[in-house]
Amino acid sequence: MKVLVANLGSTSFKYRLFDISNETELARGGIDRIGEASSHCFVEIGDHKAEVDQNIPDHAAAVSICLQQLTDSEHGCLKSVEEVAGIGFKAVFAGDLSGVRVVNEELLQKMEALSDIAPAHNPPYVNAMRQLQSAFPSMPLVAALETGFHETIPFEHRAYAVPYEWYTDHEIRRWGFHGASHRFIAGRVAEILKRDDLKIISCHLGGSASICAIADGKSQATSMGMSPQGGLPNNNRVGDFDAYAIPVIMKATGLTFEQVLQEMSSKGGLLGISGLSADCRDLEEAAADGHDRAEKALKLFEASIRSYVGGYMALLGGIDVIVFTGGIGENSERIRTNVCRDMQWAGIELDAAKNSAVKRNTEVCISADNSKVQAWVIPTNEELVVARQTANAIA
Amino acid sequence: MKVLVANLGSTSFKYRLFDISNETELARGGIDRIGEASSHCFVEIGDHKAEVDQNIPDHAAAVSICLQQLTDSEHGCLKSVEEVAGIGFKAVFAGDLSGVRVVNEELLQKMEALSDIAPAHNPPYVNAMRQLQSAFPSMPLVAALETGFHETIPFEHRAYAVPYEWYTDHEIRRWGFHGASHRFIAGRVAEILKRDDLKIISCHLGGSASICAIADGKSQATSMGMSPQGGLPNNNRVGDFDAYAIPVIMKATGLTFEQVLQEMSSKGGLLGISGLSADCRDLEEAAADGHDRAEKALKLFEASIRSYVGGYMALLGGIDVIVFTGGIGENSERIRTNVCRDMQWAGIELDAAKNSAVKRNTEVCISADNSKVQAWVIPTNEELVVARQTANAIA
Repeated sequence: MKVLVANLGSTSFKYRLFDISNETELARGGIDRIGEASSHCFVEIGDHKAEVDQNIPDHAAAVSICLQQLTDSEHGCLKSVEEVAGIGFKAVFAGDLSGVRVVNEELLQKMEALSDIAPAHNPPYVNAMRQLQSAFPSMPLVAALETGFHETIPFEHRAYAVPYEWYTDHEIRRWGFHGASHRFIAGRVAEILKRDDLKIISCHLGGSASICAIADGKSQATSMGMSPQGGLPNNNRVGDFDAYAIPVIMKATGLTFEQVLQEMSSKGGLLGISGLSADCRDLEEAAADGHDRAEKALKLFEASIRSYVGGYMALLGGIDVIVFTGGIGENSERIRTNVCRDMQWAGIELDAAKNSAVKRNTEVCISADNSKVQAWVIPTNEELVVARQTANAIA
Repeated sequence: MKVLVANLGSTSFKYRLFDISNETELARGGIDRIGEASSHCFVEIGDHKAEVDQNIPDHAAAVSICLQQLTDSEHGCLKSVEEVAGIGFKAVFAGDLSGVRVVNEELLQKMEALSDIAPAHNPPYVNAMRQLQSAFPSMPLVAALETGFHETIPFEHRAYAVPYEWYTDHEIRRWGFHGASHRFIAGRVAEILKRDDLKIISCHLGGSASICAIADGKSQATSMGMSPQGGLPNNNRVGDFDAYAIPVIMKATGLTFEQVLQEMSSKGGLLGISGLSADCRDLEEAAADGHDRAEKALKLFEASIRSYVGGYMALLGGIDVIVFTGGIGENSERIRTNVCRDMQWAGIELDAAKNSAVKRNTEVCISADNSKVQAWVIPTNEELVVARQTANAIA
């Protein structure tokens, strides 16, 4: 069975095509600047790579173009569009309509209603899904919600201490996100260590970052909360914050409540503290050159990660494995070093040489041989998880 | 030198009188229901105890009555009011006017301006301080701010990942509270263990609760944030929360932003989850009788404490001592048990018998003999800390 996994932005469409029978990736590609005069379209099928600029008005047209490329008689990997069994979406948030779901009107309406929580993601997903429903009425569309992996989190790690009805009636809780990535890590660690009874902390560190506590393959706690804004600081998003500071900021700046939220989710995070860049690579370079606020931003990020790692070790009663994944987790020696520094009391000891020698896109253990807790760098594969889930949902 | 330490509520005044030369408490007393037709007035001087009901219109009158009792020719412990060198206040919040300060107009105006952050505390303190300034113009009044102990917290544990100017220009940061209590614990542990280079986690667990990470006697991180609403769930206050859930609650309930904050700080916490009581003792009793939501509230509280304890062990690079104090910390065997359960990986092992045998108002080690980390129950003495600080400020 062949499944296309779609990753959507408001003006972008990226995809990977999997043959789920052997879990191989057949092709990947996508389109940027959808709706602009000249959209950028790229595709990789085996060794064949192509790029072309042309006008692509909307997401349905984008998918059509990509399917044409995949079925192209010269370079394509599909004989016909009918070979695609379905399209899977790493959708972000639909409240209690979580897990893996065939896209229908109920789901679309719920995602629309909850756009406040995921303003960068829900609107373009809903829009694109509706277009695809009319353009390809017989193509199954499947949403694998980012919250799905976290359904196993127990009440005491999931609830805020709010009036109880807010939890039961209004879905106010730590939903958690990055579910596909943390699920991939949970499964992959079990495969590598040939045990499924492990206690794992998965650090998905990228522009968007979260930590997940996993026991026996199941999510037990995660750092993102009701929204993807909570938890760790992100590239330009605030992370954990005291809501009672908001009236102070409103008075001091004249901003409205909505504007304060908007500032925190666009001008906060690494960008807000550093005043320089939302990109960790830029900050590491600047900090090495003595840029004080870049160093401050990195230290704050590292302290927040350490704090969640320690907290989740306590919630799990100690751990067997800590994993770094995501763009920063896989590529920043500094962040991994500082997160694991002085953690011998908890059984974590990095091997500095291994940590320093980590190669891009490589799965590697970076802990010392005598470390009680194993530390790994594992490239995540969220699309593969969504492809599996999509195939299951269709079957 | 004799110092009176005042603890104020909107309609209450409680005090302790210390002889700071030998750190003994000479008397304690107070008045409830100030401003009502019949106020309740009580005093303890050595073995002498008295209670009387009479009309006491305001805080200045309350202090006058108490000073009369303390200078009473039969039972008093003072020859004249002049023996009182000053009155110290465990004041809550004045932003960057932190530390220990002689009360002046600048401080009072700052406390007024920041009433949003400490609505239950700042207004009555400001009101009473102003009354006392006019009633006893020659009596030094000293404010020992609850935030003072936390001035040593480094940037990366203090700042939120907000736009940097909010930190530098608008005082948006984790101020922390319960400073007198955590300072007392830091000092007392150093005395007991005869070392001042210790890494300590101080768990002040009461109706209002916070955790503090201490190294070398200095606060390194604390769970309360910009306001006393952040951090652990409290009796009826929410603790950590995702601000981006607020618009969802506003839409769902029709409440305004201010009303949502008000609900979270009065109908949240243990009360909100249990629907039964804000008092941990009630909840433990109900939970033992099978009350599901009481059990949920306790579990949520315990998980939050565990998570901060783990997080702060990570920030400190392991710890030497964990201390339980405050009404719950000193008296709840269950909470101490569950916070320290399965913590051997971090070197913490309770002695169940010692933990179970803790007597009220007793300083006792509750860890097992072979526990790497010592666990203690230490009754806090915030008033003594304020008395010391007041005496220093006057001298």
